[in-house]
Amino acid sequence: MEKIRVMIVGYGNVGRGVLASLRNNPDFELAGVVSRSPERVKRELSDVPVMDVKDIEGWKRELRPDVAILCGGSKDDLPKQGPEFVRHLTTVDSFDNHSRIPEYFATMDRAAQEAGHVSVISTGWDPGIFSLERTLANAFVPGVRAYGFYGLGPKGGLSMGHSDALRTIPGVKDARQFTHAVPEAIERVRRGENPAFEPGDMHTRECFVVLEEGADKEAITKTILEMPGYFAPYKTTVNFISQEELNTKYKGFPHDGLVVAAGSTGKGNPALVEYRCQWGSNPEATANVLVAHARAAVRLAREGRKGAFTILDIPATYFSTLSREELLKHWM
Amino acid sequence: MEKIRVMIVGYGNVGRGVLASLRNNPDFELAGVVSRSPERVKRELSDVPVMDVKDIEGWKRELRPDVAILCGGSKDDLPKQGPEFVRHLTTVDSFDNHSRIPEYFATMDRAAQEAGHVSVISTGWDPGIFSLERTLANAFVPGVRAYGFYGLGPKGGLSMGHSDALRTIPGVKDARQFTHAVPEAIERVRRGENPAFEPGDMHTRECFVVLEEGADKEAITKTILEMPGYFAPYKTTVNFISQEELNTKYKGFPHDGLVVAAGSTGKGNPALVEYRCQWGSNPEATANVLVAHARAAVRLAREGRKGAFTILDIPATYFSTLSREELLKHWM
Ligand SMILES: NC(=O)c1ccc[n+]([C@@H]2O[C@H](COP(=O)([O-])OP(=O)(O)OC[C@H]3O[C@@H](n4cnc5c(N)ncnc54)[C@H](OP(=O)(O)O)[C@@H]3O)[C@@H](O)[C@H]2O)c1
Ligand SMILES: NC(=O)c1ccc[n+]([C@@H]2O[C@H](COP(=O)([O-])OP(=O)(O)OC[C@H]3O[C@@H](n4cnc5c(N)ncnc54)[C@H](OP(=O)(O)O)[C@@H]3O)[C@@H](O)[C@H]2O)c1
Repeated sequence: MEKIRVMIVGYGNVGRGVLASLRNNPDFELAGVVSRSPERVKRELSDVPVMDVKDIEGWKRELRPDVAILCGGSKDDLPKQGPEFVRHLTTVDSFDNHSRIPEYFATMDRAAQEAGHVSVISTGWDPGIFSLERTLANAFVPGVRAYGFYGLGPKGGLSMGHSDALRTIPGVKDARQFTHAVPEAIERVRRGENPAFEPGDMHTRECFVVLEEGADKEAITKTILEMPGYFAPYKTTVNFISQEELNTKYKGFPHDGLVVAAGSTGKGNPALVEYRCQWGSNPEATANVLVAHARAAVRLAREGRKGAFTILDIPATYFSTLSREELLKHWM
Repeated sequence: MEKIRVMIVGYGNVGRGVLASLRNNPDFELAGVVSRSPERVKRELSDVPVMDVKDIEGWKRELRPDVAILCGGSKDDLPKQGPEFVRHLTTVDSFDNHSRIPEYFATMDRAAQEAGHVSVISTGWDPGIFSLERTLANAFVPGVRAYGFYGLGPKGGLSMGHSDALRTIPGVKDARQFTHAVPEAIERVRRGENPAFEPGDMHTRECFVVLEEGADKEAITKTILEMPGYFAPYKTTVNFISQEELNTKYKGFPHDGLVVAAGSTGKGNPALVEYRCQWGSNPEATANVLVAHARAAVRLAREGRKGAFTILDIPATYFSTLSREELLKHWM
């Protein structure tokens, strides 16, 4: 079998994760990495083709990719890079700005239809696996409401967006934010109460902040606690620690989450479904899901399909390397 | 929107569950029930059309079903009824004899292709949702092994097959068997050990037996504990109780289960995924999944598809009543 050639577009946490994931997926091979800062990436990767993202004719000719996995940021990179890349080839991305997914889907669908390509958008674990589990729960326990919780383990889950928000505060040298699920809130959902939560009822936020020299602790604490959207709606704790402690005790990208839905069947028999994941590395987990979707995207493209797809539009067989015989025999 | 007309084929526990489920799924209406014992069913159902399964021209004309949900037993009914019914219309079933699924799929695929119909086989929660979760786990955490556990709650899960087996023993008047997962075995999987279990390592079996008058307790206990396949490989406990106690304390069809898979991403970062369900009524839960698959089967048929399908072949959107706009806006 000829291997599927993947081009990684943008080399950050998720881009690194995709590179690692391809090694665990023998039906793929890395075509190369394209980046807006190829010199930076070349310093990190010596044995991999790295090209400038703008050199379109160059990477088409030299990397000959079957599919591009777009690893740019959802805020500024993907809205621009998505429609550009799908003009040239099959794409997969993890666009995770939930409120803008309808708009992004429409943009990508139009661009993909025009070009005759396939684009799988907004996959990873949330959006992605969690979207699928929410939708299946609602279909299999008719009309059930699905809740998402994050940071169930003792350490909680690292939130990149909230860590970034802390780092924008003057006087903050570095910071990381861990989200914790409120166990009582999970139990209320499990009991079938279907509560109407405010965001602050479901999660608390724990901040680890390294200060610049001479920065004002109290003022910074106040700024954090009052930050609208990010921290004001939550019970938030702020811990000031040294850079060394941050680097050793709070390193990595751990994250975990739970989709939970409780309803009933027949005349009031309880029905509870839960999906739980725990990742040592959030970007690596996201990358693995992206790679499975790249497999699906290439298969869809080979069938002559085109346009934008989400995880909800794709049968499980398309993600799997297992044959139909094997699936029927051992996985059903 | 015209409603999808469902014909229930066979009226037992799952058949009853489908009837109840249709009331919670407003896009469906009950066309009627067909049975090999219509008189029995009519005594239970006064306000529903009930016909003899053999009166094919009759039910076609009078019930005008869009889809048949086959609720017969997997051992003797479905292998015969499946290929017969798919000659006439779209079918869905919950064939759960795991080792015979490849053979049943081939039979149903051939019959469905010949007739130009769609047949969705082997759905419910296991096989069904659990098959999907196993396959997705293996695709998203590449190559991971997925384990299934049953009966995690304090009461355990009622096993119909094992209860039936107990009732075949001379001297046993009635019996029910509850399966319990071994918590330490689950923890070993969660820790990423990927153990090679014998069946007896994962589950224990608890029997509640009502004796005929004068039956020999010790002989029956011995027969149970030595029954090959069913009980011999397991740590089994046998409790003799009265019919009244069985009817009150051990009634209903509760069941629950867990799919769990632990692997790693990148250079050894742990990855753990779990799907858990808990059903007050196993046949009602199965019925709800069957009804969602009936929706999918009708949609596939309307697209001109034909042949046999499993849950692994069907995108989530096909199971859902939610529109694309709604899914993109609130469920991704
Ligand atoms: N759906 C999900 O479950 C899920 C989970 C996690 C993340 N995500 C999404 O994935 C996206 C990417 O996340 P990420 O953690 O990989 O973001 P990131 O590390 O900030 O990388 C984003 C982009 O920034 C550039 N970049 C990275 N490091 C740089 C550096 N040192 N200097 C200059 N530029 C640099 C890279 O583009 P160039 O190489 O072109 O410079 C890279 O593609 C996020 O937007 C997030 O929304 C989704
Ligand atoms: N995939 C899953 O997760 C899952 C879960 C649960 C069950 N299942 C499967 O679903 C199948 C049906 O389960 P079930 O609990 O509904 O079985 P059941 O109650 O024994 O019913 C099976 C058939 O037996 C006949 N029947 C029922 N009660 C009868 C009675 N009192 N007298 C004479 N005939 C009677 C009915 O056919 P007629 O009306 O034609 O007589 C009925 O369709 C099982 O084979 C099981 O394999 C699958």
